[in-house]
Amino acid sequence: MIDWFHWLNLAGVAVCAVSGTLMAYQKRMDGFGVVVLASATAIGGGTLRDLMLDVPVFWIADTDYLYTTLMAALVPVIWLRLSPQFPYHYLLIADAFGLALFNVVGIEKALASDTSMAVAIAMGTITGVFGGLLRDVICREVPLVLDGELYAITCIIGGIAYGVAMQAGLSTAWCGLLALSVTVLLRLGALRWHWQLPVFSGD
Amino acid sequence: MIDWFHWLNLAGVAVCAVSGTLMAYQKRMDGFGVVVLASATAIGGGTLRDLMLDVPVFWIADTDYLYTTLMAALVPVIWLRLSPQFPYHYLLIADAFGLALFNVVGIEKALASDTSMAVAIAMGTITGVFGGLLRDVICREVPLVLDGELYAITCIIGGIAYGVAMQAGLSTAWCGLLALSVTVLLRLGALRWHWQLPVFSGD
Amino acid sequence: MIDWFHWLNLAGVAVCAVSGTLMAYQKRMDGFGVVVLASATAIGGGTLRDLMLDVPVFWIADTDYLYTTLMAALVPVIWLRLSPQFPYHYLLIADAFGLALFNVVGIEKALASDTSMAVAIAMGTITGVFGGLLRDVICREVPLVLDGELYAITCIIGGIAYGVAMQAGLSTAWCGLLALSVTVLLRLGALRWHWQLPVFSGD
Repeated sequence: MIDWFHWLNLAGVAVCAVSGTLMAYQKRMDGFGVVVLASATAIGGGTLRDLMLDVPVFWIADTDYLYTTLMAALVPVIWLRLSPQFPYHYLLIADAFGLALFNVVGIEKALASDTSMAVAIAMGTITGVFGGLLRDVICREVPLVLDGELYAITCIIGGIAYGVAMQAGLSTAWCGLLALSVTVLLRLGALRWHWQLPVFSGD
Repeated sequence: MIDWFHWLNLAGVAVCAVSGTLMAYQKRMDGFGVVVLASATAIGGGTLRDLMLDVPVFWIADTDYLYTTLMAALVPVIWLRLSPQFPYHYLLIADAFGLALFNVVGIEKALASDTSMAVAIAMGTITGVFGGLLRDVICREVPLVLDGELYAITCIIGGIAYGVAMQAGLSTAWCGLLALSVTVLLRLGALRWHWQLPVFSGD
Repeated sequence: MIDWFHWLNLAGVAVCAVSGTLMAYQKRMDGFGVVVLASATAIGGGTLRDLMLDVPVFWIADTDYLYTTLMAALVPVIWLRLSPQFPYHYLLIADAFGLALFNVVGIEKALASDTSMAVAIAMGTITGVFGGLLRDVICREVPLVLDGELYAITCIIGGIAYGVAMQAGLSTAWCGLLALSVTVLLRLGALRWHWQLPVFSGD
């Protein structure tokens, strides 16, 4: 279990670091801005989760995450030197996987701390979306999570799928795989067919 | 004591969730934006307080708060479906009570962790205003706490009243009631008569 | 060691409180806005560091820091009443010292919690820059740390110097002094000769 967990988490961190770097590119930041934004996006959600669960912060306990963030942040820098066209399309797909990976990691880490299922679902969602929220607030953008296609709600539905599967007696690995699939498929479907929640306003 | 504490806290959470939802309405957010903003406003201040005091985060330890937030967030959604006029006037009054409730909860939770009175006053103020600050930063508004009528300063004065009453030997219940009254009355007075602190600037 | 640490930290807190107050002045905030911004700038970085290291938050454990923040916030208020000209030039120099002081404090506190050197360097940088980042996000400014002359990168290079000196067997005091000097000199040099990292963008 520990191993699969570790690799899930590293993959999510790498994908989010890439997305932070791309935002820094759009905003014409300097080399350090890239490091700040990539780190905030990649490890912000997990840091908040670990602080709230009162467990050791994952990247302090295991330096691998810090090095992964820095190396992943270099990928788009080098890519964009070699070719002016960055495959944003693939990035959105990778980002959907990152969201789903973080969601499952958050749920499992919360359950390992003996929280209720409702809190675990909240922790999965926070792990998935907080890094991106931080990135957007620092860059003074309208947070993606609050705007447009289904985003964070896919984490919540994935989390509910996890809870139902657990009630049905499935093993942790199957629960995780189910939550991962539900989250990824919902997010990819939302991107492809522009699924949106109704806007809540006066007219 | 535990009971009165619990109800104070639930009442504060509900009022702040309503205020977050109303901001989401003004900003024309979708269904999930409502959940994010309502939660950030309702449990942001208490979460920061509990992290800093190194006690279990209140809504993780007791899931009631999470359900209260979600249910309270539904109130304005349903209300605004039924009637286009939302009583913003009553909301400001309710918000003043929310601020004062959170202030007292923060002070008492800090004192229960054996902090000094100065730290307890800071914790009360943080519990009262941080949720709203978070709401405004996410929505890219000028934070209310930094602008306009007396707001956070009412928490500080309420906290000082608590400290004075404690020195005078009053029981916890009376100290809390006094701080609550001072905070609410100052805030309502500020709203009614537009009390402001002098602006600090060059002319 | 404890004593030198304490004074370093107090000096850093005072300088950052002054810088928060000056930002509040530019933004024409009221008296409480000054307190909020000065506190966020002065104790924000150290608070995040202590939360992540899971050690008692420094200003809760020792109320001196809170009083220092409030008193330091008064300095520019009184100064600007007496004279319309505030020596911004000296402020930038003092701010460079504040950055370097917080960097060394962060590194040493992390190492005292048995983190790896890479994590300690990250903690030093976070302690140095997070307060200012918070100040700029609250005021809806482009964060300084992401823009312009070398800023946070000076903390990282100072941290690497600390690590190299420690490997070479120098005592803690010498390591700290070296990191302090490297950070201050790089920052002052960047201010004087406008050193910048290359901007990362398409053209």
